[in-house]
Amino acid sequence: MTNKGLAVLFSNKSVPFEIVTFEVNPPTSDQIMVRVEGCTICGSDVHTFLGRRSVESPTVLGHEIVGKIVSFGAENNRHDYSNNHLAVGDLITWSVVANCGSCIFCSRGLPQKCDTHFKYGHKKVKKEEPWTGGLAEYILLVSGTKVFKVPENLSLEVACPANCTTATNVAAFRVAGNVAGKVVLIMGAGMLGVTACAMAKFNGASMVIVCDTNNQRLIKAREFGADESCLPEDLPKFVFGITRGFGVDVMFELTGFPGAFENAFDCVGIGGKIVLVGSVFPSAPASLLLEIMVRKLLSIEGIHNYTPDDLAHALFFLSKTNHLPWKSLVGIWLRLSEVDLAFQLAQSPDYYRVGVSNTIDL
Amino acid sequence: MTNKGLAVLFSNKSVPFEIVTFEVNPPTSDQIMVRVEGCTICGSDVHTFLGRRSVESPTVLGHEIVGKIVSFGAENNRHDYSNNHLAVGDLITWSVVANCGSCIFCSRGLPQKCDTHFKYGHKKVKKEEPWTGGLAEYILLVSGTKVFKVPENLSLEVACPANCTTATNVAAFRVAGNVAGKVVLIMGAGMLGVTACAMAKFNGASMVIVCDTNNQRLIKAREFGADESCLPEDLPKFVFGITRGFGVDVMFELTGFPGAFENAFDCVGIGGKIVLVGSVFPSAPASLLLEIMVRKLLSIEGIHNYTPDDLAHALFFLSKTNHLPWKSLVGIWLRLSEVDLAFQLAQSPDYYRVGVSNTIDL
Repeated sequence: MTNKGLAVLFSNKSVPFEIVTFEVNPPTSDQIMVRVEGCTICGSDVHTFLGRRSVESPTVLGHEIVGKIVSFGAENNRHDYSNNHLAVGDLITWSVVANCGSCIFCSRGLPQKCDTHFKYGHKKVKKEEPWTGGLAEYILLVSGTKVFKVPENLSLEVACPANCTTATNVAAFRVAGNVAGKVVLIMGAGMLGVTACAMAKFNGASMVIVCDTNNQRLIKAREFGADESCLPEDLPKFVFGITRGFGVDVMFELTGFPGAFENAFDCVGIGGKIVLVGSVFPSAPASLLLEIMVRKLLSIEGIHNYTPDDLAHALFFLSKTNHLPWKSLVGIWLRLSEVDLAFQLAQSPDYYRVGVSNTIDL
Repeated sequence: MTNKGLAVLFSNKSVPFEIVTFEVNPPTSDQIMVRVEGCTICGSDVHTFLGRRSVESPTVLGHEIVGKIVSFGAENNRHDYSNNHLAVGDLITWSVVANCGSCIFCSRGLPQKCDTHFKYGHKKVKKEEPWTGGLAEYILLVSGTKVFKVPENLSLEVACPANCTTATNVAAFRVAGNVAGKVVLIMGAGMLGVTACAMAKFNGASMVIVCDTNNQRLIKAREFGADESCLPEDLPKFVFGITRGFGVDVMFELTGFPGAFENAFDCVGIGGKIVLVGSVFPSAPASLLLEIMVRKLLSIEGIHNYTPDDLAHALFFLSKTNHLPWKSLVGIWLRLSEVDLAFQLAQSPDYYRVGVSNTIDL
């Protein structure tokens, strides 16, 4: 192990990223020291970068991470969440939130809201605890982190988004219930959206409709399983036409914009379900017609992050859908030293994800 | 059987009720002719009476009904939903919606939205089909009606609201999930609200908080199981104080007013569930903060009417909670000829329910 490594510090949107060298100390207790192989920049990283979300700073951003095990703390049991044996050099990913397992939220199946949770890529960096985010050469996995070996058939591009985009989609589909034979509407054709298209098809949806403002993204979504696509201005007429007036059974709101929610709300049929995923930044309130909620027996459910079981399923899902062009979604890989450029490109609709790595061959 | 009977016709709010005599013909196919023993005036009848809900008219209002079997159609199998044998003279109630059992909504567990549903107390009256509502001497149960014998320990006052208020509450608790050990907030202390207080306690809630503008109704709600009560202006501070900052696990919105929903929304804790029941009349849109829905993993579910299984449970629940002062909720019984007075009294907060009957001793 080298005893120093690079990390990219973010302070706030008006201050450039700063590349800092920190010491790499051996892990203690059941910690694992990991060398970051790759980190993809998530939409919520971009929201933070643009000042739409507040964050305690300085921080090391980046939470869609895959890395190789460098060393174990003496008390680590060297097994992953699925009880696979772990060894130095193994390629792993992990749940974005480390949790205690015993507080009221952990007890109730909400480990992501653990009283003492530790969220990678979202922590204020202290000099003695610098390795907390993916935009760095190392990351230290703390106690309570749920670790998973990356399936052998997944490339870095495919595996990096697993512990955020893919696992969050699994959580969204979990609360949506059985979509087999159902009509699904997906609002937003970014990384979450194309993944949701693929997952809806994988889970047996009879029809997947995707809606976005960007025609290129609608075309891409069809490569991932969307049967139909439309622009927001064509909702809800398009949906009612294609569903013979019934509307959709499940709607996934992945954009976070109240207007998208309101537009899609009208498309949901009697007994339908709306899953909210995208609203991870402040916005104006949406309008909700309570009488429609009641008369149509609609439900709305918010999802934030996921459980370790969801991440296990996300990796299974990616390994079973490896024929899909997942690789094409990470448009470019850059070095840590190019992080400013990486965040510029990550704002472009041409890139679903931008990857950052100091280890892979570019 | 007499061959004529009285029915009360409602046209619209500016026209007085009209008492009309119709012929009583023998039931055909699997129909059942029933003599109405009692009908309580539901809040939604009052909404219709006041012009807040549109209805095809003329109609016979009233759907919280208990009656005695007068005669069966030749094809009726003379068994109720629970497979009890039925005979002339038996006291029965029935699901407010008769359903086909085979359309897409029936197939998906939403019989109340059946493509060809028949809803008692909500039908335009034709001269040849006059017996459709509870404010009449007779009612004709059509094919697809789910009939239930009234448990012997239930008086008329207790049994009448079963097929609306009580069964709708059962549906609301069904979608709320297990409330045992949970903190429940009930918005509105009318007939739905006091029933919800009793049901929350019956189902094991650790704390039941009820909120209403009317202090007398808050006091009454405590007789039915509310542990705590507060006025709307004291929300959400009261709730956060008494729950040590956690908020409530489940909130039942029974008033139908957007302001009540918005006020109570802030009281719901992480992972909490909101069940909408009261919004059966048009109102302004409510404001919904999507980011809060996501970050707190909240869910909102609308309930309208119920399934036959819910009515079965409603009768079980009432028979098991017969020690509660249910009888006191029907403040007065009047004759069909006094229906104008009945609807005046039904608007007063002093009456939870007003009963109408032409058969019982007054």
